[in-house]
Order: sequence, then C-alpha cells, then structure tokens
Amino acid sequence: MSVRVGILGATGAVGQRLIQQLDPHPQFEIAALTASESSAGRSYSDAAKWRVNTPIPEDVAEITVSATDPDEVPNDVDLIFSSLPSSVGERVEPGFVEDGYVVSSNSSNSRLAEDVPLVIPEVNHDHLDLIEVQRDERGWDGALIKNPNCSTITMVPTLAQLDQFGLEKVFVSTLQAVSGAGYDGVTSMEIIDNVLPHIGGEEEKMESESRKLLGEFDGAELSWHDVDVSASCNRVATLDGHLENVFAELAEDASAADVEAAFREAPTIDLQSAPDELIKVFEDPNRPQPRLDRNVADGQGIATGPVQETSDGVQFDCLAHNTIRGAAGASVLNGELLVEEGYL
Amino acid sequence: MSVRVGILGATGAVGQRLIQQLDPHPQFEIAALTASESSAGRSYSDAAKWRVNTPIPEDVAEITVSATDPDEVPNDVDLIFSSLPSSVGERVEPGFVEDGYVVSSNSSNSRLAEDVPLVIPEVNHDHLDLIEVQRDERGWDGALIKNPNCSTITMVPTLAQLDQFGLEKVFVSTLQAVSGAGYDGVTSMEIIDNVLPHIGGEEEKMESESRKLLGEFDGAELSWHDVDVSASCNRVATLDGHLENVFAELAEDASAADVEAAFREAPTIDLQSAPDELIKVFEDPNRPQPRLDRNVADGQGIATGPVQETSDGVQFDCLAHNTIRGAAGASVLNGELLVEEGYL
Amino acid sequence: MSVRVGILGATGAVGQRLIQQLDPHPQFEIAALTASESSAGRSYSDAAKWRVNTPIPEDVAEITVSATDPDEVPNDVDLIFSSLPSSVGERVEPGFVEDGYVVSSNSSNSRLAEDVPLVIPEVNHDHLDLIEVQRDERGWDGALIKNPNCSTITMVPTLAQLDQFGLEKVFVSTLQAVSGAGYDGVTSMEIIDNVLPHIGGEEEKMESESRKLLGEFDGAELSWHDVDVSASCNRVATLDGHLENVFAELAEDASAADVEAAFREAPTIDLQSAPDELIKVFEDPNRPQPRLDRNVADGQGIATGPVQETSDGVQFDCLAHNTIRGAAGASVLNGELLVEEGYL
Amino acid sequence: MSVRVGILGATGAVGQRLIQQLDPHPQFEIAALTASESSAGRSYSDAAKWRVNTPIPEDVAEITVSATDPDEVPNDVDLIFSSLPSSVGERVEPGFVEDGYVVSSNSSNSRLAEDVPLVIPEVNHDHLDLIEVQRDERGWDGALIKNPNCSTITMVPTLAQLDQFGLEKVFVSTLQAVSGAGYDGVTSMEIIDNVLPHIGGEEEKMESESRKLLGEFDGAELSWHDVDVSASCNRVATLDGHLENVFAELAEDASAADVEAAFREAPTIDLQSAPDELIKVFEDPNRPQPRLDRNVADGQGIATGPVQETSDGVQFDCLAHNTIRGAAGASVLNGELLVEEGYL
Repeated sequence: MSVRVGILGATGAVGQRLIQQLDPHPQFEIAALTASESSAGRSYSDAAKWRVNTPIPEDVAEITVSATDPDEVPNDVDLIFSSLPSSVGERVEPGFVEDGYVVSSNSSNSRLAEDVPLVIPEVNHDHLDLIEVQRDERGWDGALIKNPNCSTITMVPTLAQLDQFGLEKVFVSTLQAVSGAGYDGVTSMEIIDNVLPHIGGEEEKMESESRKLLGEFDGAELSWHDVDVSASCNRVATLDGHLENVFAELAEDASAADVEAAFREAPTIDLQSAPDELIKVFEDPNRPQPRLDRNVADGQGIATGPVQETSDGVQFDCLAHNTIRGAAGASVLNGELLVEEGYL
Repeated sequence: MSVRVGILGATGAVGQRLIQQLDPHPQFEIAALTASESSAGRSYSDAAKWRVNTPIPEDVAEITVSATDPDEVPNDVDLIFSSLPSSVGERVEPGFVEDGYVVSSNSSNSRLAEDVPLVIPEVNHDHLDLIEVQRDERGWDGALIKNPNCSTITMVPTLAQLDQFGLEKVFVSTLQAVSGAGYDGVTSMEIIDNVLPHIGGEEEKMESESRKLLGEFDGAELSWHDVDVSASCNRVATLDGHLENVFAELAEDASAADVEAAFREAPTIDLQSAPDELIKVFEDPNRPQPRLDRNVADGQGIATGPVQETSDGVQFDCLAHNTIRGAAGASVLNGELLVEEGYL
Repeated sequence: MSVRVGILGATGAVGQRLIQQLDPHPQFEIAALTASESSAGRSYSDAAKWRVNTPIPEDVAEITVSATDPDEVPNDVDLIFSSLPSSVGERVEPGFVEDGYVVSSNSSNSRLAEDVPLVIPEVNHDHLDLIEVQRDERGWDGALIKNPNCSTITMVPTLAQLDQFGLEKVFVSTLQAVSGAGYDGVTSMEIIDNVLPHIGGEEEKMESESRKLLGEFDGAELSWHDVDVSASCNRVATLDGHLENVFAELAEDASAADVEAAFREAPTIDLQSAPDELIKVFEDPNRPQPRLDRNVADGQGIATGPVQETSDGVQFDCLAHNTIRGAAGASVLNGELLVEEGYL
Repeated sequence: MSVRVGILGATGAVGQRLIQQLDPHPQFEIAALTASESSAGRSYSDAAKWRVNTPIPEDVAEITVSATDPDEVPNDVDLIFSSLPSSVGERVEPGFVEDGYVVSSNSSNSRLAEDVPLVIPEVNHDHLDLIEVQRDERGWDGALIKNPNCSTITMVPTLAQLDQFGLEKVFVSTLQAVSGAGYDGVTSMEIIDNVLPHIGGEEEKMESESRKLLGEFDGAELSWHDVDVSASCNRVATLDGHLENVFAELAEDASAADVEAAFREAPTIDLQSAPDELIKVFEDPNRPQPRLDRNVADGQGIATGPVQETSDGVQFDCLAHNTIRGAAGASVLNGELLVEEGYL
C-alpha cells in the first residue's frame, strides 16, 4: 500500500535529509530522484556528494538520477517532494503540478501565493483545502503545497498557542545554524570566532509567512493574521538547530504559567512522523540548547524554556532542528497529511 | 604629573585588561596591585596567570602584589581601579573610600545604589556629581563610581541617541562572547557547536542599569528613565565582542535615516581613551561582526549597522568589545573623567 | 543471571558514560554508585550534573550514592567499574580488591604495575591471567584490571596488526577531543581559534602503555614489547573522537595493501559490546574524520584511512571515540571479558 | 627611490595580504594590480571582496585593475608579486618574465623546476643566483623566483638548523589553519567539531620542497638534500597559524639544549621585513599556540617550544603565520632580497 515518491533536487542538502527521513518510511517508497542536467543518467551514489551522518541507503544508491523535468520522471510516482533552489522551483514546479503530480515543496518560491497552502500540520492543516481553490483557478490536476522557512517554523507553533491571549506583536532574534545555508553556504573563515548579523531575505520570510500560517481560511479565501512581526536574523557557529528569542505582546493578561500550560497543550496530529508532544517546555532556564535539544522528538519537536512575563506580554526561547522540522521533515509531514486527507 | 593608580583584583581577567590598557597611559602610572591573600607578597608575574595577547609590561611584572585591604596599599596611590568579584567588592570597596581613595569600579555591587554614580562619560557624565551626595550621606572623603555591565554599555549609547525621538520600550537579544564570563567561565564542552540561552542576572542588569544611566540628575536626586527594557541574553562561541539586536519603540516618528544620523552625531568627550567617534554606523547589513569590528576605535567604540524601521520604532544591531569598552576600558575612561572633573 | 555492578566515581564524565553504556546491558545491572563524601546519601539525579546526550535512566536516577569506600557499597555487588581520578584510585582501589571485589578500572594509577593486567580484549586478552600472579603476590581475593589511556587505545589495535611485519619504531601525533580532559578540563577561551600543543603526561602514557599492551605473557611474567614510541599530543576543538597520525617503521617490507589487509583482518572477540569489525579501513583519504566517524561500531570501533608507504614503513590515520572505546566502553568490555573468562 | 610593484591575482586572499603587507612599505609602491578578465577595468575597491582585518588602503582602492597579461600592465613597473592559482601561474608567469619583469611568486607552479630559485632568505639566499642559470637557459631578461608552500616554510628554518647534527629523516604532522585553503576553501559544515585529515598535494609539497630548499647550489647546479621527509597534513578549526609536530632523526648526538641553542642562533638577514629573531623558542611546553603566537615578529617569525630528545633524534613543535610568513610576507621578503642582491 506504499506511495511511490520522487524527490526533486535530491543531491542537495535538504534532498539528502529527505532521503534519510524516508529510509525507511512505512508509507513512502523512493521511486525517483532528480537533479541538474549534469547528474542525470548517473547513479545516485555517483551523483551525490553524500554528507548526512547515516550511510546512504543501499537501494537509493543505485537509483538512476533523472533531470528535473516531468517527462523524465517515471509515471507511477504519486507524490513529489521538492527541495529545489527557489529560482529553479519557480520554473519547474508548475509543470509537475500541471502534469498531475501532487507536490510537497520546501522551496521558498510561491509560499505567499494566494492559492498555495503554506502548512504546518499541527497548526493549520485546514489550509490544505486551498488546493480546491488552486485547482479551480489554475486548472491543475495535481496540487502544490509548501512548508515554511526553517526560522519561521521554529517559532510559529508557539505563536499559534499565544493566539488565545490576543497575539498582537512579535519581536524575534534568531541564532541560526550554518546548515541552514546549505553545505557550502557559510565558510569557516566567516564563522570561527564570529557571528553573521544578517541573513538575506530571512527576516521578511519570518514576518510574512507567520502571518499567512496563522491566518483564517473560510473555505474560499485566506485572511492573513494581523500580527506584527519584526525579526532580526543571525548566523552562529552551530551545525544544526535554530534558537530563537521571542518577545510577544498580548492583548490579554497571561501569566508565565498560563503560557507554559498553553505550550504544553499544543495540539498534536496523528501522522506517522508527527511528535507525540509538539512543544517541549524545559523548566531549566539554561535550556533549550542547540546541541542538546535539536533532536527532541527525533528532530520533529519544538523545544522551549521557561516563559518570563514582560510589561505587555511574554518572552521565551524556542528551538527546532532546522533541516528536519525546519525543512525535510516538514515536507514529509505535509506529504503524510496529503495522504491522510485523500489528496493522492 | 602622572596619577598613581592601584588595581584591586589585578590578577583576574579584567585586572589584566586594565594593566594592558594602562601600558602605557599618559596620565596614569600603576603603583599598586592587589589580589587574594594567597597571591599577596608574590611578584605580579609570579601571582598572575597572564593571558592577555600582549606581553606583561616589565615594570608591572616586578610589582609585589598586596592583599586587597586599604592598609596594605601604598599611601601615595591616588586612584583605585576595582575589578573584584561583586561579593568581594561589596565587602572591601567601602573601606577604600572611607580611607579617602577615589575608586573607579567595574564590580557589579552598588551599581544601582542611589548615591553611587553609574557613568558612561559620553552619555551621562553629569551624574558624576552624585559624588557630592555620596560624600554628604556617607561622610566619605573618597568617592565610589561605577561603570555598567558589558552588555548594558554596548546598547546604552544608542538608546541615549534615541531618546530625542521619545524612547519608550526596548527589546534586546544579546549574542555575548565567552570572555565576558571570565577566563574559566565557559567550558569548551558547553559552547562548541552550541549556544547557551541564559546568563544568570544579565537580563536584570541590562533592564535596570539602562534606566539609571539614561536618568536625569537635578543636582540632588537621580530620577531613572522610565524606558521599559526586556532583555534575552545568550552566550555564543566568540572570544570577544558582544553583538546585540535591539528593537526600540519610539513615541515620535523617526525614519531610519533620522536614527542613523542621530547615531553619527552621538556626543564625544575629550578624554585620553575616548574615541573620536562614539558610534560607527556601517552601511553594509552584514556588519557589525564581532571578529571584524570589536576593535573599532581601539575597542572603545560602539559599532552599529543599518537601521530598519518597524511599525512603532526601529531595529538595529550594536556591538562593543566587552572587556575593553565593556569593562577595563570603561573603568579607565571613568578614571580619566574623575581627573578631568577635579575629583582627585 | 545478571551481574550486579558498582561504579566508583559515578558522577564524573566517564562515570556518566559508564551509566549510559550499561543502560541497558544484557549481563550487567547497576546496583551501586559511589562519589565523593559531599554526594554520599543523595540520590544520583540530585548528586550528578548529568551531561550525557541521552536522558539519565530512571532507575539509576533514584539510586542513593555511597561514599567511595568498600564498607559503604552493598555486599551483593559482584563487579566494580572504576573511573576515579588517579590519585583517588591509587588510594581506594586496593581496598576494594582486598575485600574481594573484581575491579575493571579506567583510572590511570597502577596501569604499568607488573602484576596488573592492562587489557584491550581483542589485542591481549591472554594478559588477563596476570590476575593469578596478582593474587599470589598480594594475597588478594578480588582482582584489579585496567584499560589503557584513550590516546593509547586508539592506536594500539593498529600497531598489534603491524607486529607481523616487524614493528620497530612509531612516531605519532594526536589531535585529541576536549572531552578527554573532562567536562571542565578545557575552557572555551583556550580552544576557540586555537590548538593546545601539550597534554601533561599523555605522551609518556602512549609510549609506555603501548609497549606493555603489545608485550608477551608467558604465564608467569610479562615482557614488554621493545617498540620505540615517540608521541606528540595536541588538543583541538572537537567534542569527541581522537584522531592520530601514525608513522611506523617496520623491519620487513610491507606494502600499503598488505597493511590494509592486516587491519581488515584484525581479530574480533565474542563479547557483548565488542564490534564485529575491530578496524574499519576507509578508502577515501579524507577519512576518518572525528565528527563523521567517532561512532563507528557504536563508538567501539577503530577507524583508519588509506595506508601510505614511507621509506622504511607506513603512515596512516586512526580514530576512536575517546570516551567510549577510549574509556567507559573499554572498561565495560574488560568487565565482559572477566565474566567470560570466569573471574567472577 | 621606491620600486614600483605590480600584484598578479590581487583580489584573492594572498593578494589582499600582499596589499596589506605593502601598506606602507619603505621600498615598494603599488603601481599595478591584476585579476581575472571580469575584474579588469574596474576600480580595485569595486573588484575585490576585501576581507583582511585592516581597511583597504585609500590609494590602492582607486587603482584600476588590469587583466593578468604583460601587455596590460604599465611599463614602469619593476617588480611583480604573483599569487595566482597554480594553473594560471603556469600559463602566464613565463610571459611576464620573457617581457623582462622580475617576478617573486607564491604560486605553486614551477617551484621544483631545476632553474627556478625556491628561496627563504634566511635559509638559502645563495640559491638566488640560479637566476643566472635560468636566464642562460631560457633567454629571459627578467627572473622568476618562488617562495615555498606555507606548511613547508613553517618547518624548514628549523630543519636548516638541525643540519649541523646530520639531518637524516623527518616525520611531520601538521595542524593547519583554514585560511590556508583560501577564503572559501573550507566550509563551516566541514570543520565545526571536526578535523579534516587530508589536504590534497600538501604532503608531497612538504617532502620535495624541503629537500630543494636545504640543497646545495655550486653556482651551476642545485643538489637536493637527501633528507627523507614524511608528512601527514590536517586541517583544524583555527583561522591563521599552522602548527606542526616535527620528529627528526639525526646522525649525530644532539641534546635538547644543543638543538634549542641552534634554533636561537638561527641566522637572520638584513631585509626590511625580516624578523630580528628568526626562531623564537618558548620554554613553556604549552607553547607555541596558533592564536597566541602566530603574530610573533609581526607574523614573519617561526615559534617553537621546548625540544625533547627521542631515541635517534629530537621532537618539537613549530608554528608560523601561514598567510604572512607562509605566503604574502614570504613573497615580499623575496622581493626585498631581489632588490638587495641587485636583480632589479
């Protein structure tokens, strides 16, 4: 009963994490891998510079890589995971969906499009039905859904739980891991004994994606949340795990205990890769720490520390594994949701 | 015409930086060094585990270390720099002042006391006259003045320039260097591939010290500023240089350009170790970076990057060398101010 | 049928790794934990500052810590693992053995004593019978055996395989992880953007322990191997995993292929925690790398790279997990060997 | 009386260090800068991504970059410094020399050519006269001289001093800084919590260049030294400064004190950028350390620690700044030597 899946951009950093997340997976079976023209026709083990900390799965190693083109991918693939650079995603993803493929994409293109669901299953799985709007408007047979950026996804599950207290404004500083920039994204000369105080485009993504994710979908149209988010993004010398300092202003009074309780009660969802506990709340103010806590719930959980009250709200830290819950694992979760909701 | 100075806690990390800052200094001559009982009677080179990146000055190496007791320090010392652990500072500093010494202290004890000037020369040198109140109330001949905590001092010169736009509220996240915890304060096992999301007491210091520094002194009493500061402090794997992400809410409209202009026009002061430019504003959003910019103005400057507008204010980064402008250099500047203002 | 074990020095870094290695273990059950007087009487979870990357086992957390004294340890303990500072080990280990305990120790004291077996099971398990000599000479009922230092154990399995080619001389440089110095052993100020070129006592341990481990035991006396080892030990900014560059001079001709074959054919032993393959030989000259390869065979394997020929021998790299195969895991293996050989 | 110099490959990492070393220089004035075609015609400040820790010199910023072609470089340039990738150097350097330019090159091409002097001024300045052979054989008007690779240059001054004791064999392990691979050469994902045990081609360079440098030139032919060098090269997480562990076998008896004395007595040379002391010998076994000691003699010195005796020789550590003494500074020194010896 397994679903045959293809991975677009399979040789990249997120592509490799996708393969790791799917090895094995009770519902999904890897049937196709695509990469750039120069890799097409080669075995995956030959085409990929494998850098994940578990060995390359044997059956995956032997798959012949295709070009990233719907005509080159085997017809019996049911679900596509896409982890392409956004400029490539923008160009090729629509062709796959036109051809009838259901695409769960991590690429940043089209995340803010009106008819493209941007989904974190535990937070806004009801947005998935935007697919109907998408199909109507575009005449597509398939479907395109997106997961948010790694820095957004780390914070939004906590914001969703703050909404009951009247979430008005958010200031957030991030301390992001180097893996978020891709394997070659940050050189050692840049980061040893240093911090990079700017990540191009990241602040804007956190500000807009958060509002879309927290928005309301009435079956026809999606209204963005009016929370006002200001982000300041930094790169630090950690391998994996984005840590974020959140300051949230709330319309209603909420004690630290109220907020911690709300975090502990965050909804879960019955999907294969979803954590039993979405938000883990540490009582120790020295947690969460990237190296110690990035693998909470196999990298699919959000870790937070003690909440502190401020004059008009609360402040707290949150942390997630940026290439699992923040990228590959998020796409897999969305794939599982698509199966569960009958979109395949 | 040189002033003979003593250093309390001379073998510690800040004590060593003080010696480095004073070697040579056109106004000050090191005449006494104190440390704990176990070091008393030994030569400084023997007592100190020297770790600063310039050699120990030859004449300092041969000074015999005294116990940290006013009776043990040579009488002809005019000015005392204190870099003691706060619990020790609290116990011994009053004795020195009672004995008539003028003490410029980096220790955190008494920073918030009503009659103790907490001073950044360029920001609030007029607070220095609290010494008159102090002498009246305590019957002291000497004087005790303090410089703020390293994380406070990095931010406050920028806040002082925002005050003209109606500074109301500040959210700040810090990315602090390991040297701020002292030489042995952060182990390598804690910080490699990691961030520590909590620094005990640091957030409270930033919140209260900022309000005192920005307060108004009417000649008799000091009224704290009512700015509302919320801080979240993190330790990262940099050696020196605290980077801070500041979000400030302002009562009045101020464009990014207005604020950058205000930063560039920050007042300077005519003291030996004071920078020609207090706040350097980089136009490149990738700056300031700790390793590249911590030595701006020989470690006495504040570096900032481009200012961005938020819905009710601005956000920007600031950076200072935490053991120079944030500690030893701050005490030296205050010492120079005491001389300039005739308190010796 | 499980053996009840006690751990001396259970709150230390190696003590914690021992608990992790034994949780669970098919043969061993933790029945006693000792630490310094100040911890005695407290629950383990209260006494230990737990820092290993897996949670503290629940049943271990509740054990009441004893003082490190044979009179304080429950009588029904059969086997003792010792990970004490050498000065403490020297003082207290003999008392445990006199009282009849069999002690598998990681502490460096007595490693070179004539009648104390220093053992790597795959290399020299026949040395175990030195216990008979030990009992005769000392009148002990129990037994004391040692595993070597972490830097020695990384190299010696390869040297043992070189012995067939007439091993004469070894030059070795180590690039050791900070965990080898204990949790607080290396400060962040020492190691960020730096290397420490000296580790006190380490070079001597590698030189002498190697000769004892490779020695011949005739049933009565142990003759050390006459290989001439010169070591240069460095500390680098890695968390776990000692990497070593070995240059070995051989009496006989041996091609790189001969030596790689010898490594691949290294003997294994049928013990619970022993790896299926003792020495993994990577063909890629960029391996082994500490972060990628320290967990080979669950941290019990030795990883090497391609062998290169030199004028009179060979050169190659080797790597092992310093707190598993190099410390806690080594003691556990020796404990399993003691059970297998009937010494309990 | 200043010499007008040009820099080939001026936008690269070594090119930038060259500009820094020459700003200002009492003998040399920068008159031409070349880079790849895409940079030609632009101002240097526009073409270069400046990353050195001092600001770009103002007059250099305004120089218009030329293509790396002798026809594009102003005729009044007297001396060329070359820091090109070796494949480019191999192609273009001969054209400059044919055109009459004197070229002091850091590029690795032609370092081992019979008629190209490979020079460290303090070690083998007499090899410079190979230029006569070169001119005879090639019919060139100019001259091409080379400085060795950064890892070679760190060690060879010590080997030259060991030669009086009958230097026979050397085993050396290197712990090299990331800057040696160029600004983008080592990614942060590769080196955080890790060591790279292999640097392509580096071992061979150390082995052959050392023998050429220590060779004897009889006025007509250069005989390489027959020392047998085996190197193992590693990349570690330091920014600058190559540390090397050297084991040297000597034909004659030499005590540690003899060797340390020989190091202290290493010859110096009277050139502008040459250190007063070539080899600094630390007595502390914890030195030399990359971060503390890479700037010995403004980055032009070699730092060593205590010498230890081995069975047939000695072992010790040595350290040099890899982009100053190991690259840009080495080329400048050779340029000064060319002036001094009348080759311009």
